[in-house]
Amino acid sequence: MRSFAIALVLVSLPVLSLSVAPSKERLSEGPLDGFINTLMPEPSHLITQPGGLSITASFSIAADRFRDARLEDAITRSVHRIENRTGISIPPAPADSTPATLIISVDKAGETIQSVDEDEAYSLEVTPANAHIWAATVVAAMRGLATLEQLIQSDANGYFIPAVQIHDTPRFRWRGLMIDCARHFIPVDVLKRTLDGMASVKLNVFHWHLSEDQGFRIESKAFPKLTEFGSDGLFYTQDQAREIVAYARDRGIRVVPEFDMPGHTSAWFVGYPDLASAPGPFHIERKFGVFDPVMDPTRESTYKFLDTFLGEMATIFPDHFMHIGGDENNGVEWKASPRIRSFMREHNLKDTAALQSYFNQRLLKILEKHGKHMVGWDEILTPDLPKDIMVQSWRGFDSLAAGARNGYNGILSAGYYLNLMSPAEAHYKVDPLPETTDLSAEQQARILGGEACMWEEQTSGLDIDSRVWPRTAVIAERLWSPRSVNDVDDMYRRLEIESLRLETFGLTHISQEGVSLRQLSGTRQIAPLRILASVLEPVPFDQRAHQQHANQLTPLDLLVDALPPDPPSRHDFELQMRAYLQNPAERTGEQTDLTAEFKSWISAEPGILRLMTNSPLLAQAEPRAQQLAELGTLGLEAVSYLSSGTPAAGRWKAAKLAALDDAEKPRAFVRFTVTKPLRDLVNAVAEAPSK
Amino acid sequence: MRSFAIALVLVSLPVLSLSVAPSKERLSEGPLDGFINTLMPEPSHLITQPGGLSITASFSIAADRFRDARLEDAITRSVHRIENRTGISIPPAPADSTPATLIISVDKAGETIQSVDEDEAYSLEVTPANAHIWAATVVAAMRGLATLEQLIQSDANGYFIPAVQIHDTPRFRWRGLMIDCARHFIPVDVLKRTLDGMASVKLNVFHWHLSEDQGFRIESKAFPKLTEFGSDGLFYTQDQAREIVAYARDRGIRVVPEFDMPGHTSAWFVGYPDLASAPGPFHIERKFGVFDPVMDPTRESTYKFLDTFLGEMATIFPDHFMHIGGDENNGVEWKASPRIRSFMREHNLKDTAALQSYFNQRLLKILEKHGKHMVGWDEILTPDLPKDIMVQSWRGFDSLAAGARNGYNGILSAGYYLNLMSPAEAHYKVDPLPETTDLSAEQQARILGGEACMWEEQTSGLDIDSRVWPRTAVIAERLWSPRSVNDVDDMYRRLEIESLRLETFGLTHISQEGVSLRQLSGTRQIAPLRILASVLEPVPFDQRAHQQHANQLTPLDLLVDALPPDPPSRHDFELQMRAYLQNPAERTGEQTDLTAEFKSWISAEPGILRLMTNSPLLAQAEPRAQQLAELGTLGLEAVSYLSSGTPAAGRWKAAKLAALDDAEKPRAFVRFTVTKPLRDLVNAVAEAPSK
Repeated sequence: MRSFAIALVLVSLPVLSLSVAPSKERLSEGPLDGFINTLMPEPSHLITQPGGLSITASFSIAADRFRDARLEDAITRSVHRIENRTGISIPPAPADSTPATLIISVDKAGETIQSVDEDEAYSLEVTPANAHIWAATVVAAMRGLATLEQLIQSDANGYFIPAVQIHDTPRFRWRGLMIDCARHFIPVDVLKRTLDGMASVKLNVFHWHLSEDQGFRIESKAFPKLTEFGSDGLFYTQDQAREIVAYARDRGIRVVPEFDMPGHTSAWFVGYPDLASAPGPFHIERKFGVFDPVMDPTRESTYKFLDTFLGEMATIFPDHFMHIGGDENNGVEWKASPRIRSFMREHNLKDTAALQSYFNQRLLKILEKHGKHMVGWDEILTPDLPKDIMVQSWRGFDSLAAGARNGYNGILSAGYYLNLMSPAEAHYKVDPLPETTDLSAEQQARILGGEACMWEEQTSGLDIDSRVWPRTAVIAERLWSPRSVNDVDDMYRRLEIESLRLETFGLTHISQEGVSLRQLSGTRQIAPLRILASVLEPVPFDQRAHQQHANQLTPLDLLVDALPPDPPSRHDFELQMRAYLQNPAERTGEQTDLTAEFKSWISAEPGILRLMTNSPLLAQAEPRAQQLAELGTLGLEAVSYLSSGTPAAGRWKAAKLAALDDAEKPRAFVRFTVTKPLRDLVNAVAEAPSK
Repeated sequence: MRSFAIALVLVSLPVLSLSVAPSKERLSEGPLDGFINTLMPEPSHLITQPGGLSITASFSIAADRFRDARLEDAITRSVHRIENRTGISIPPAPADSTPATLIISVDKAGETIQSVDEDEAYSLEVTPANAHIWAATVVAAMRGLATLEQLIQSDANGYFIPAVQIHDTPRFRWRGLMIDCARHFIPVDVLKRTLDGMASVKLNVFHWHLSEDQGFRIESKAFPKLTEFGSDGLFYTQDQAREIVAYARDRGIRVVPEFDMPGHTSAWFVGYPDLASAPGPFHIERKFGVFDPVMDPTRESTYKFLDTFLGEMATIFPDHFMHIGGDENNGVEWKASPRIRSFMREHNLKDTAALQSYFNQRLLKILEKHGKHMVGWDEILTPDLPKDIMVQSWRGFDSLAAGARNGYNGILSAGYYLNLMSPAEAHYKVDPLPETTDLSAEQQARILGGEACMWEEQTSGLDIDSRVWPRTAVIAERLWSPRSVNDVDDMYRRLEIESLRLETFGLTHISQEGVSLRQLSGTRQIAPLRILASVLEPVPFDQRAHQQHANQLTPLDLLVDALPPDPPSRHDFELQMRAYLQNPAERTGEQTDLTAEFKSWISAEPGILRLMTNSPLLAQAEPRAQQLAELGTLGLEAVSYLSSGTPAAGRWKAAKLAALDDAEKPRAFVRFTVTKPLRDLVNAVAEAPSK
């Protein structure tokens, strides 16, 4: 990873001094007299100053050094967003000799094929008079523009960019988002808006999971039966794939395609059964899990097929890396086949792991022939593979660290699985290089970053936005910002700001809830349902999988599918309760707010039940409506005890804690976001001595 | 237009009798004991019966006669929507010998290139045991499937399709939606979801307005400078255009491209100035209106260019019609050019209208060479053009009728301009063939239908959905259903049902308001703003144009851009007030609701003003927040007088009517939806005799 000093030299920074202190300084936080941090991810070095640059009708932008079509397109996109945010028309270039308000000084285009070494460091200075971005490459300039857009704020006087000096460089070079487009197909326009969101939070790798037991999703002209029989007609044409690659490149994002093998390959075999270790016929797998069908690593025809196929894919995906999956091969078919067993004996392969290692070595040669480095999940890491392969760890930090100790580069994905429905703060606390690491500096340098993973068993194109966003912004911050940026409350404050900004890219992570609740209830009069929805979220992945027994064809149209994981109300309620419980007798503001909220829960129940009457899909969540009212009553009673300093009557507490236990039981695949603070509330109530 | 009897013969209807009465019969309207009409457009013949067909896990679909890929794709789309609506997985085909629950009997594919003569008539019978669609063509079957999807309802027992016998055929053959993608560019994915919405309400023509003074929006390989210099980089590639044509055809929708000429052509001339009547240089026109630059009709090179260009376009757009615009040529440049004046003298062309007619005749020959019929706006209608051209009337019914009298086919668009921000009921009352028409039967047959027109001066890809939908569904009903279907209150009831369904296609006509309000206020806590928004709508087009002086580059990011025209709350409030005023003393239900609503207006004000403090864009609408509270007070006072039977104090009425006058004045480009009913309310209050 480049050091920041080098980046500064590269951009020949003319104004800012190199002696910038590495710690951030912040002024007071008020809308009129101080800086409000609206950045996510936070820059590595930020100095704030009083005042700011007003955005007025005379605002203009110029690129005064290197410029190319990619930079100009990026500027045009920024201009449109600034215009839309502020209502001010910005001319394409400043008039005549006037210096531009925002000057963008770029040294060079950057790499033709963006690599992990692409220089992304930039500096941004904003004064009350003007703004300046210095960047070595076009990609770095885009990172600077993203920061500038995030900084825009408004007060009664208008829109402005606060005065700052920023020197910013990513902590990790590989900051990715994986999307599984195989278990459920994700339309091209959804991927595009996702790429826009990624660019906004400075992610730089889109890992495109394109094949699975449940579907093969990219057109091959060499092997058309892959999609003809393996995709249900849901796949990306090569033109569309190229369109996505170009769209990503325009935003400084690499596209790493994944063709998972030798396992997770049922969908390949429907059209090409000869690839498989056991005889067919095969079908697109509708269930989820680990299945027996795997490629036959003993036949030369397998490698011939893969050579042709991966060669074809290499013409579509220019990235230096290609992901070969490699996970979850259960070895059942290999052990069952006399032919394969004898091959193992002949080649001195002591177990199926050794056979998979043999397969990977053959695959490696093919990838090398087509100019690609290999990435795979943990399982590919066997000692006989060379050090230039890279490991993506779904197993966890220990596995990743072991690889680094053995000389392998790696990225972390354990802890970043978006499908698990964990809160943003859980992901935020996962660090690819925790402070406690005992890796040497050299070994640490092998940890290139990480990737958020959006597995799609329980998600489709309809609700993917609310699964990916806004939580991915938090993972993006973990991978870009210094380790010391770790204040959870401030993260949630900034996350909400970025979440609203992400809507400008057409992302539906906030609006889809309303759409789905209207569909479920058949009316737009969903106010009571909104109240219920505001305190619910999906249960964890495993819980739903265990209870629902869904397969690929199961409609994802329940209340759970309408709800985002970790809604902002969850943390807000926690903060509110924390503040109230500090001093229940005197915190009258929180008391009033909590009382109003509890009353709204109680009064919502009849309306919710009415909406559920004619909606069988919604009616599955009926117990949750009753529990909502019960929790409201519990809350009111507790606040009444606490605020008046009266102890609760005998057995009140036990009864209420039991009600909370009940509310925490999984039902309708949704869980309450408020039970933990409510438990604290109930526990804070004094109990009258039993008679 | 085919008669219904012929359609029935074509589909060889095996079950339903031909003696179906032409009038609709309805049973009582209750969710459990009778039929609720959820259809828009209403079918031409509908007989309802008790009971319905339950949608359960054993539901299956089969096409038992003709089938092709287009039909299968249409069925797959329907299946996915039914699955998503009901939560039930429907297998691709019924198991073994069981008869399918829904049988689709189609005679034949229909026309290779869908024409105005395509047979769209279908029959649908639903019994408690099964459902059956009979259709002569695949397009007709799609119309039947759209009806079936609209019929799906639910009660406490589950999802069902009510028992009906439907024989349905459109009243008009040309039912279109024009979208101006030139003044503001509309992305491909927005067009696709619009096509889905069109198919849902049985529209069959997408009229694609592709060129204007403000932009040239389709790639020409023969003349690449058209988009290189005339599009700001915002245009459809030929691949994308073909994709849209295929997507439309898959939904039984024709695509008629429009290349407006000889006027509205500034954007063509930036790259090809030799086409123009006056010397350049030219620029993309940013303002809106009628401009002087027009094509030079005197040079052979103009026709050579158009021959090549339209020939190229004919390879992309297979429809039998091509639209040449022809509107609003002011003739200024022609009159100013000595060369053109002398050409007119030589050719005996007495005025610029005659010269345009000459141009059109030359153009007609080119279109004929490429196998196309000509469509144009009113202005192309001159006596020297042959009868096989078609006129689209923006001037009104008289102009359309005059054409029909003279033997020309025509379609109506006057009265269907969505950009005017008129209420749905205004469009609903416009009939291409009003009952009072004095046209002969033969002349009436020349009125082929109509088109809703979405002009884009004040609309972009962001808010187009809320401008097009749901009002377009009402125009679609006017063009499909019998003239006698004209009950405004029932139209609004059904429109709301269809509006919610339209959300399933990804249309954002309901959800965009929230997205925009969050952007404007920078928070998701927008409840008070929602209250204000619910009683506001955009001012009419002309009023905004007059006040704002916007051009193509003006951001469309104000409160007005967030609000849909004719929100459901407008008609709902009217109904509520109508009911209350029938007997204010006894209508306690309405009194309670109105009182609550008025109180919410008053209590919203401080919250709205708080949100406006830091949002300069929103603050422009500040007077509206104050007026909202005043209207609330006015309402409360009036209800209090009326409900108690007390007369108002002297001058109360005059003061309140003045407040209403003031509220009705245009401000911030938005208007209140509630002032008319409030005026009725104030006027209903008795006044105490002045002393």
